[in-house]
Order: sequence, then structure tokens, then C-alpha cells
Amino acid sequence: MPPKKLQVGAAGLGRMGKRHALNFLNRAPRSQLVAAFSPDPEEIQWAKQHLEPYGVTLYTKYEDMIQHPGLQAVVIGTATSVHAEEAIKAMEKNLHVLCEKPLSINLDICNEVVAAAKQRPHLKVMCGFSRRFDESYRAAYRKVENGLIGRPSVLRSQTCDKHDPSGFYVEYASWSGGVFVDMAVHDIDLTLWFFGSDVVPKSISAYGITAVTPDLKKYNDFDNAVGIVEFHNGKIAYYYCSRMMAHGQEDVTEIIGTEGKLSVNLNPQSDLVNYYHAGGITREVPPHYWGRFEQAFVKETNEFVDSCLDDTPLPMKLSNAVKAVQIGAWLQESLVSGKQLRFDETGRRIEAAKI
Amino acid sequence: MPPKKLQVGAAGLGRMGKRHALNFLNRAPRSQLVAAFSPDPEEIQWAKQHLEPYGVTLYTKYEDMIQHPGLQAVVIGTATSVHAEEAIKAMEKNLHVLCEKPLSINLDICNEVVAAAKQRPHLKVMCGFSRRFDESYRAAYRKVENGLIGRPSVLRSQTCDKHDPSGFYVEYASWSGGVFVDMAVHDIDLTLWFFGSDVVPKSISAYGITAVTPDLKKYNDFDNAVGIVEFHNGKIAYYYCSRMMAHGQEDVTEIIGTEGKLSVNLNPQSDLVNYYHAGGITREVPPHYWGRFEQAFVKETNEFVDSCLDDTPLPMKLSNAVKAVQIGAWLQESLVSGKQLRFDETGRRIEAAKI
Amino acid sequence: MPPKKLQVGAAGLGRMGKRHALNFLNRAPRSQLVAAFSPDPEEIQWAKQHLEPYGVTLYTKYEDMIQHPGLQAVVIGTATSVHAEEAIKAMEKNLHVLCEKPLSINLDICNEVVAAAKQRPHLKVMCGFSRRFDESYRAAYRKVENGLIGRPSVLRSQTCDKHDPSGFYVEYASWSGGVFVDMAVHDIDLTLWFFGSDVVPKSISAYGITAVTPDLKKYNDFDNAVGIVEFHNGKIAYYYCSRMMAHGQEDVTEIIGTEGKLSVNLNPQSDLVNYYHAGGITREVPPHYWGRFEQAFVKETNEFVDSCLDDTPLPMKLSNAVKAVQIGAWLQESLVSGKQLRFDETGRRIEAAKI
Amino acid sequence: MPPKKLQVGAAGLGRMGKRHALNFLNRAPRSQLVAAFSPDPEEIQWAKQHLEPYGVTLYTKYEDMIQHPGLQAVVIGTATSVHAEEAIKAMEKNLHVLCEKPLSINLDICNEVVAAAKQRPHLKVMCGFSRRFDESYRAAYRKVENGLIGRPSVLRSQTCDKHDPSGFYVEYASWSGGVFVDMAVHDIDLTLWFFGSDVVPKSISAYGITAVTPDLKKYNDFDNAVGIVEFHNGKIAYYYCSRMMAHGQEDVTEIIGTEGKLSVNLNPQSDLVNYYHAGGITREVPPHYWGRFEQAFVKETNEFVDSCLDDTPLPMKLSNAVKAVQIGAWLQESLVSGKQLRFDETGRRIEAAKI
Repeated sequence: MPPKKLQVGAAGLGRMGKRHALNFLNRAPRSQLVAAFSPDPEEIQWAKQHLEPYGVTLYTKYEDMIQHPGLQAVVIGTATSVHAEEAIKAMEKNLHVLCEKPLSINLDICNEVVAAAKQRPHLKVMCGFSRRFDESYRAAYRKVENGLIGRPSVLRSQTCDKHDPSGFYVEYASWSGGVFVDMAVHDIDLTLWFFGSDVVPKSISAYGITAVTPDLKKYNDFDNAVGIVEFHNGKIAYYYCSRMMAHGQEDVTEIIGTEGKLSVNLNPQSDLVNYYHAGGITREVPPHYWGRFEQAFVKETNEFVDSCLDDTPLPMKLSNAVKAVQIGAWLQESLVSGKQLRFDETGRRIEAAKI
Repeated sequence: MPPKKLQVGAAGLGRMGKRHALNFLNRAPRSQLVAAFSPDPEEIQWAKQHLEPYGVTLYTKYEDMIQHPGLQAVVIGTATSVHAEEAIKAMEKNLHVLCEKPLSINLDICNEVVAAAKQRPHLKVMCGFSRRFDESYRAAYRKVENGLIGRPSVLRSQTCDKHDPSGFYVEYASWSGGVFVDMAVHDIDLTLWFFGSDVVPKSISAYGITAVTPDLKKYNDFDNAVGIVEFHNGKIAYYYCSRMMAHGQEDVTEIIGTEGKLSVNLNPQSDLVNYYHAGGITREVPPHYWGRFEQAFVKETNEFVDSCLDDTPLPMKLSNAVKAVQIGAWLQESLVSGKQLRFDETGRRIEAAKI
Repeated sequence: MPPKKLQVGAAGLGRMGKRHALNFLNRAPRSQLVAAFSPDPEEIQWAKQHLEPYGVTLYTKYEDMIQHPGLQAVVIGTATSVHAEEAIKAMEKNLHVLCEKPLSINLDICNEVVAAAKQRPHLKVMCGFSRRFDESYRAAYRKVENGLIGRPSVLRSQTCDKHDPSGFYVEYASWSGGVFVDMAVHDIDLTLWFFGSDVVPKSISAYGITAVTPDLKKYNDFDNAVGIVEFHNGKIAYYYCSRMMAHGQEDVTEIIGTEGKLSVNLNPQSDLVNYYHAGGITREVPPHYWGRFEQAFVKETNEFVDSCLDDTPLPMKLSNAVKAVQIGAWLQESLVSGKQLRFDETGRRIEAAKI
Repeated sequence: MPPKKLQVGAAGLGRMGKRHALNFLNRAPRSQLVAAFSPDPEEIQWAKQHLEPYGVTLYTKYEDMIQHPGLQAVVIGTATSVHAEEAIKAMEKNLHVLCEKPLSINLDICNEVVAAAKQRPHLKVMCGFSRRFDESYRAAYRKVENGLIGRPSVLRSQTCDKHDPSGFYVEYASWSGGVFVDMAVHDIDLTLWFFGSDVVPKSISAYGITAVTPDLKKYNDFDNAVGIVEFHNGKIAYYYCSRMMAHGQEDVTEIIGTEGKLSVNLNPQSDLVNYYHAGGITREVPPHYWGRFEQAFVKETNEFVDSCLDDTPLPMKLSNAVKAVQIGAWLQESLVSGKQLRFDETGRRIEAAKI
């Protein structure tokens, strides 16, 4: 009798939903994708072709899917606005949850998910931040753990997307939470990882411009933004997010310690090819984050499955996801207001008037 | 009813055999590993733990395994000396064959396999050269196809292993065929790919030293060797193979054309991390070929499965494997004798006496 | 009769003074170093050996040196505190002036120098910022001029020194003006070059830590600092300065435009050597700025000489030096106070109370 | 009284001659260029403008120049065919000699120069190989001396020129000695440096093609050539020279030792700029060797001057220049004949018939 495989349902079959579903179906040997849900007819059509033939039952209602017989876990890749609600419903059905980030761009809602999870400690509830599963970041982290750079003190991190001239990101800005919530949240998560999740912001400042997409202004968003988070324990993180790159995705991190430094992806590359031509030597760059992080998502899938089946700790805490979104929201607030935010040592906000 | 999956048996569960078995089991969604064979009790023990629980029937006789009910294909990862025999036996049972390189270090035996395959054109018989499935080499090849470097004219390629001080490679040399057959065969295969498999050698010269493993001399082998193959159509390939690298695996290829050049893996790396320390900036290098080519083997597995199930052409011809071994053997002959070999335009050997 | 050479006197023979003197003596074919001044006996001793034998008259009083017969120009490499005074005195003697940066860390004094120079438009008065003379920055600038990156919009620049554990930089901080005036002034100058010297700051924010040199606090300075300057024309510059690098000098700049990006020295290097060893592949880094910018100083010297002899425009305006110091001082003020500074569109400071 | 400067005359004012003259005039503080010779009216015209105003006496006869009063040394940058004769004549006038490589492409003539120099041991006679003066090669050499790579065992070196479509190199081939004498001689010189100048070739093999300049065949030359030199002490060097590069000058060397490896210029670059654009990230490459080695020539000049003035040993032995040309000529012979050359342990040629 073969070992039991984790019975998984996939909620949402959009761009990331499809990828999660296929990862659980094909690239996580200890999982079995048994159900999938989408309210979207086109996505269901896709699923009839790519999932159903492999024994996946399709649903057009989330509530139906989570009652699929024998279901043990769901992976949530639907629109951000329903992440939290679906996660809580799944927990109520005693299902493990892997939720695409963010839980919500509303912090109260984020906290509701965390509270619900706390009540069911036997369930594995994770909001995946892909970079935690990337081999390069992990190699960097091991070096930090081994003391190779002394005490990490300054962190520089950027999430820079290839420019998409279609205008897609204008409407997207109306509900994404803004660049610091949508993009820099990864860089903030890395900060919580490398500096420790107990760091307390002391001040937050951010500035932005709309260099190539002026329409972003109507949603109070920016196509380039820079922010600094000063922490109470003598550490500083600074971030750059941009949707203006001509060359492709360029997500770079530097962890600067008292005795050394680590850089991750300082020289982005699609592959190991250099092309020598009359104009010089050229290296191509992945156009999207998938080209950079595909294997990280596979690993995320597998580690989540392992944790559910073996009842071992998840590789990252759910509360981290809330804290990252919180800091992202503060950066965004500073970005939009142009004002510095300040916090006392307990992390409580100090009102500007009191400064 | 789910789509039919290719029913595969894995022969040999040594270092590479294990990897092939696990790839077919876990990373090839359209295949089902149903059987595995090893004559070795330790390997069977491993299989009881890692394969049997997932529905894989274990065999200690190859002849038994290939009679497994419903079996459609075998992947052969046994010792080189039995590759050919097992491949032929599998074909006689009407099974598709994916055989680890080389088919044999004996060319007559190689040709027997090719002849056997020709008699059964409905069978997919492939001897995998992993680099053909590597994304970087494929990206380079597409650039060549698109004319970006003009006419490929000179190819430099090296296969350099991290030094293994254990002495393992001494005994290994007694049956490996020598460095040009064992290592450079990949570089030769790349040559046949980038120059076209119809190139005809004009002359072959090779030289070697035993810098760190003098015991290799007793098997007429070398730990560093350099060779040049001059082709009749005005192209040159030159190779370097070494088992002396301090830093790790370093497999580099340059394809030099009349209007540009491509390099593959000129700057080897384990990951995207740079470590900045008092001695400078350091990038680590994978210690073994698996660190460089793991994903290529996964792709090889999947493309073989696709070809079997869809009856589409294999990504590389079986005869290529013979030609690569043939050129490797000539290089090795030149290396051992210290003499240049010469060939006429039909590829026939010109005896030294006739020069 | 040989063409007339510019008759130059060198003021100050400390670390940088020596270098300037030797550049004018040996590496500027159109100049003749005829005089040198230092109040320091040890420096005079050095000069007796390295300058006097080549026809350089030595002085221990600045006022005496600038009366040297036939003198046409001075290069000022004394302590920062006397730069301005000496520059003005030289102008009063009708001498061209090349002054080491900064003119002063006091802005009023800076402006006095500029005013004095305006009154003598026939004199060439330059405060050298070495990076303007560096081939790589110039190559980057040409690309910007040629429109290769569209409109420069975001500039990231860092000046990072190798950690000096001697404690030297503690006392140094008592008079250097602080890290943003002493170090980031170069990055600010680059900003004025790449964005145009007419940019007007809108807000300035900076934060710092003392990670390895806590004693810096007594002089209100930091060993790591990050700052953002937001400009009124929709551009942003952000800076990092550090004296904590384990690996060496690492001065990096990225100029990010609407259609492309340029990086300068993203991968610092002492030379073109890579060392492959059991720990990976290592590239060394220059320990000091001289290893990075030596040739830039030579070019600065020669271009200053050309401008004096040919009465052609200087490669950079004197007023730029004041503006760079001004912005540096504001960054430093923000760094020390932890508060954001704001400016109206005319560049006038908006008091915090008015926000 | 200023220290005495070396009184130098420059012979030949062609491309390299001009550069040598200007280096002695402007960039070698301890030398004084007092005389220059060229038989070419255009070159004399150039010299009237660039040298004469600085006190350089011009000559149209070499014999006249070497009688210039007080002359102490000559730098010979004339056509290769007269190098040797001029060097010998200079020695006869008791002048130190810095001669552009090669002394001659005829080995007997080379040896005459060496013999003449041996008779006048008080004279400094050097045939400059620029790479010996390059900081990167020197840094690599120091690492070898410090034992960082164990025992150097394999050397790969290439001299690759940007393709010049003008046809210039066809006629040039009629007298250059061929690619191995003209180009690879630098790589051979590096071999003699890193392996020791006492290495004895055991066999030499070389092959070439004419991929872009078929007319080279009429002078028995090639636009791409690969060669291997096997040495009697268990070392191997292999070379690639090409005049077909699309991207620029690419002179790369790897020194592979028993415990590590060094690469020099594996990633060629014009400067420290990377350009990020829609096609990827591009680094430019110097179009010519001058862009790579300019500073090395300056250092060569200065070290030669130091040696003459201080009577210290030259940085490289004259006999080395002969040996490098000898090996280059053998490679060229092998290249043209397509045959392997063999040598006994004393370095004596073994005739093919005896094999």
C-alpha cells in the first residue's frame, strides 16, 4: 500500500492559481491534487483539459470544494480580496492552508486569519513568501547563521519589474495596496527573516515618482518608490521598488553585516549564456518573477506538504505575513503622505503632533 | 479515466540509477515507475524504502523486470558494461529505452545497439546526453539557429571535475574508457550538435598529464588532457578535461562564429550569492555535475516520456551517441599514443605510414 | 623653444597633497611643478627627497609660496579648514586654483570662494570631484546623453569604505562634517551631474547607525547611513555610505532611466584576476579609493592644466561644489536629528513647524 | 641640480612607435625624450607637432639619431624587419635598448641580437612583452609565487582580435610571421613566465581555419588557430588566436595548478559600466589591445628607465624573447604543415621520419 499522499484542493486558477495547482499535481510527489475550484468559466475550461483528466474534481463554488471527500488541505490562489475568508472557511473544515500572499491588504483581516489559525494549532496555515524557499536566499541565510558576516546591520533590497506598457498596472493599483504592499512586501519579509521577526520599526520614510505611468497617481500609487525603515535595535533596511525596468525582473538583496556582506542576484540572468556581438557582451534577464523563482514555488509546495503530512513546523510563521504587510502599509502611507512615521520602542505609533 | 501514463522500469539503482528512478517516479508527471531492478542487495534495500512504498515492484534479475506486466519502457542506469546488452534485450521485449551514456565504450557494441534499434523503428531508443536538455545550452543553440553568431567555426569546451583525492578515479579509469570517452564525450556531443552531426574529422591530436594522480598511468589515463579535432569543413573543436579542479565542477563551452560568440557557464556558480569578506568577493561553485545539470536530467526524462507516449521524434538521434564515443575513443588513442590521427574526407582513417 | 608649461605650486603635502604634487610633477606633461608648501616638517622632509631634486622650491609658508616667481596656478590639498582661505589668497595673487574637495564644510565660506572666483572670471577655479574624471562615469554619462536610458529618474549611489579598525575615523568625525558631507558628497555630485545641477530638493531624510564604531556618537556621526533626496522635478536619489566594508572600497552608482539603466562598478575589482580555490572563485577589491580612482585624479590634473593654458571652460562648475556640500549638510542634519527636511519649489527650507 | 634623466631616442613613429615616444616623453618622469627618428615624411610631420616643441630633435636617418649627443638609450618601434639591425647598431653605440617585440621573426637574427647583448653586459637590452607589465598578470603571478594554486600544470591562453574587415591583415600576413608568431607569442611568453623559461617542448601541434578571410591562405596564414605545446616536465599549454571577434579584443589566460586556478581577463570590459536595456545587460569590450594594455606599456617604459638609470636587473630576460618566437615559429610550422613536431628532452627536434 503506497504511503498516504496529502489530498489537496486548489482554489483559484488564475495566473498563480494555475501554477500552484500544477505544482501540487505534478511536482510534489507526496501530494495528490484531488479538487480544484474556480468561479471563472475560462479557468474551468482550462482545468477540464489540464486537471480533470488526472483525477481532479472541478468545482465552481469554493464551499463545495472544501467539502470534497477526504480533502486535507487547500492552496489558495484566488483574488487577494477573498484570501482571508477562504482561509478561515478552510480552517473551519479542518483543512491545512497554503495561502498566496498577502492574506489581505487590510490588517484587521490579516489578524483574523492569524487568530483563527491560533485556535487550531493542529492545522498548518502558511502564507508563502517565495523568496524564503529560494536556494540562493537560503544559502545566504546559512552564511549569516554561520556568522560569516558578523551581525547583519543594513539590508538593501529591491523588487523591480520589467516595464509593462499595457497599462495593466494602473487598474491593478486600485486594489493592490500600492507598491510597498504589493512588491516590497517580499523585501520586508526578507528583512524580518535576516534581522529577526522581532525587530521594531523606529521610523519609516518613503518617496516615489510616476516616471512612466502618470495615471498611477489617481490611485495614489507610484511606479518607482524608495523607502527606509529604521529599527530600534540599530538596524536599517532600505528598499526600492520599480515597475520601470527595461531589461527584465531584477530582485536584488544585500545583507550587510559588521564583518562581511552578502549579495543575492546582484547580476540577474536568464541562464548561463553570454552573447558576444559587435555591441559588447550581453546577458539576458528573466522577464518575470517566475523566471527567477519558479523552483522556489516548487520547494514551497513540497515543504508545505511535508509539514502537513509529518506534522512538523512550517518553514515560516503566519504572523510574519501580517507583520510584513503592516510595514508595507506604513511605507505606503509614508509614500503617499510624504511624511515620516515614527514609533516608540514597543512599536506603538507616535503621532506627528507629538514629535 | 486519467490519461495513460508511461509504465517504466528502472534498471540499476546506483548513483545515477537512483536519480533516474526518482525522476521517473516523481518528476515526470506522464510516467509511472512500476518496476526497478538491481542485482545489488544494498540498492534493493534502498529501493524498498524509496520506491516500493510507491507501488514499484523490485527485481533482482533484469530479465524478470523487463517481463513486468504492462511495462512500456526502461531507463538503463546500470554499469556501462551491460548497457548495450540490456538495451537490446529491452528492445526485444518491445520496450522503449532511455540509456545512460555511453551505450558502450566498445564501438562495435554501440553499433549493435543502433542496428537493433533500426530494426524496430516504432521504439524510442535514446542515449541521453544531459547537456542537450540544459536550458542554457538550448538558449545558446536557439541563438545560433537565429543566426546571431554567423557560422559556428570554432568550439571550445571543457569538462572539469572537482578533484577527488580518494583515489576512486584510479580504478574507475580501468573501465571508463579514459577521460576523452568518459568526460569529453559531452563536449564532443555538443560539437556534433552545434556543428551538425555530419561533420567529418580530418585530424585528431591529444595530450595529457598526470599532475595529481600519477597512478592513473597504470591504466593509460590522465588527470588533465587537451585535444583538438580538426574537421574537413573548416571547423575546429578543442577540448580540455580535468579531474583536478579545486573549486568545483566547471563545464564551459564557447561557440565561436563568424559574426559573434556564445559562452555557456563561463562563470560557474552554485547559486546567485556573492560573499564579501576580507579576502575579496567569493562565489561558490557546484561540487558535482548534478549541481549543474539536475534540471537537465529532469527535462531529459520528461521529453523521453513525451516522445514515447506521443510517438514524436526523440530530441536526439541514437547514432549521435555512437559518433561521440567514436571521436572520444580516437582522442583517447591520440592521447595515449601521443600521435596525431588523420582521416580522409569520407572519414576513413589514414594510416600513419601513409602520411 | 618648448611650449610654455603651466607653472604650478602645490599646497599641502599630506596624503592627498602628495598625490596631487606628484601628478602635477610627473603625470601632467603640460604642467611644471615649481613650488610646494607644507607647514609640516615631516612633509617637507618627504618633499626634499621627492620634489626638490626635480626643481621644486619648497616653502613652509603658504603666503610665500604663492609669491613664487612666475607661478600661475596652485593645487590645494591642505586640511579642509584652510581650503577656502588659501583659494581666495591664491585668486588675489591672480593664480588659477584646483582645490581638493570640499571648499569648506561651512556653506558661507564656500560661497565666499565662489564669490571671489566670480570677480575674477579669467581665473580657472575648480573644486575637483574625482568621479567626474573617471572613464567609467564618463562612459555612463555619454550613454545618458545619447538617450540610451531615456530620462534619468532614480539614482542610487554609495560610497563604502573598507573598515579601518584603528579608530582614526572617530577623531576625523570631529571636523569632517559627517559621513554625508565627507563621503556622500561624491554621490551628490554625481546626482547633480546626471540629473542636472538645477535640480531642487523637495525633501531630505536620512538615518544612520553606529554598528562597529560606537564612539562616533560623541561627534554625532555614524558608520552607516542611508538617505533619500526627493527632487521637485520628479526625480529621486538615494544614498548609502558606510565605513564598515570588510572587503574593500565599494563605490557603486546606478542611474535608472525611463528606458534603461546604467550601473557603474557594481562588481568592484582590484584587477582582472579571479582566483579559483576550494572555497569558490574570488575576486579582490581595492582597499581604498585610490585603487579605484587613481587614473581619474591624473585626468583631473591634466584637464585642469589644459583649461588654464588654453583658456577653455573647466570640466565642472565651482558652484556645483557648493551645492553638493549644501545637500550633504542637509542630509547630515536630517541624519543627526532623525527628522525630514522639506523645501519649497524655489529651494527654500520649509520649517518643520509649518508642515 | 635635478637628478639626471635618461636621455632617450625613439626609432620609428608608426602606430606603436608614436605611443612609445609619447610614453617616454610624458609618462616616464625619469626619462627625457631627446631624439626621434622616422624615415617617413608623414611621421616626421606628426613629430614636428607633437615632439619637436618639447625639445625632441628629429632625424630621418637612424644612424644619425644614435649619434645624438648625450643619448643613452633607444626605444625601437620601427618595422619588425629592422628591429634587430637597429638594436645591434644601438648597442655598438653603447646605448641601452628597449625593442618592440619581436626582435625578428627569423631566429638566427634573434640570436645575433642576444649574442651582441651578451658581449655588452653593462647595457640593458629588453624586448618588451607588454603582458609582463600588466597589473592583472602580475597579481596572478604573485599568487602563483605564493603557492596559491600549487604547481602550475596547464595553461590556456588566447589572443583574440576584433575582426577588421578592411583586409589589412592579408598583406600583413605576408611578413608578420603568421598568427602564432605575431599573436600567440604573447601567450607563449606568459607560458615561459608562469611555467619557467627552462621548459622544454616535447611536442607541438596546431590547426587553423580561414573562416572570414580566405585570402590569408595565399600567405599560408589563418584567421583562427589552435595549438598545443606539450612540455617534457609534465606541463601543457594550449593556445587560441583569432582575428574574428565581433565584440572586441579578448585576451584571456588561465593558469591551472594542482591546487587552484587563476584566470586573467575572463570577462573582458572597456570600463566598469553595465548597460541595462530591453535586450538584457551589456558590457562593452575594448576594440584593441591598447584599450587593454595601455597602462602596461607605461609601466614597461618606466621599469626600463629605472633599470638603465639604477643599473638594476631588467624585469625580463632578452633570451626569453627568442624562445617565445622559436616556439611561435614551431607552432606556425605545425599549423601550416598540419603535422605534429616532436622534440627530445634536450629540446632537439626529432625528425618525423624517426617517429
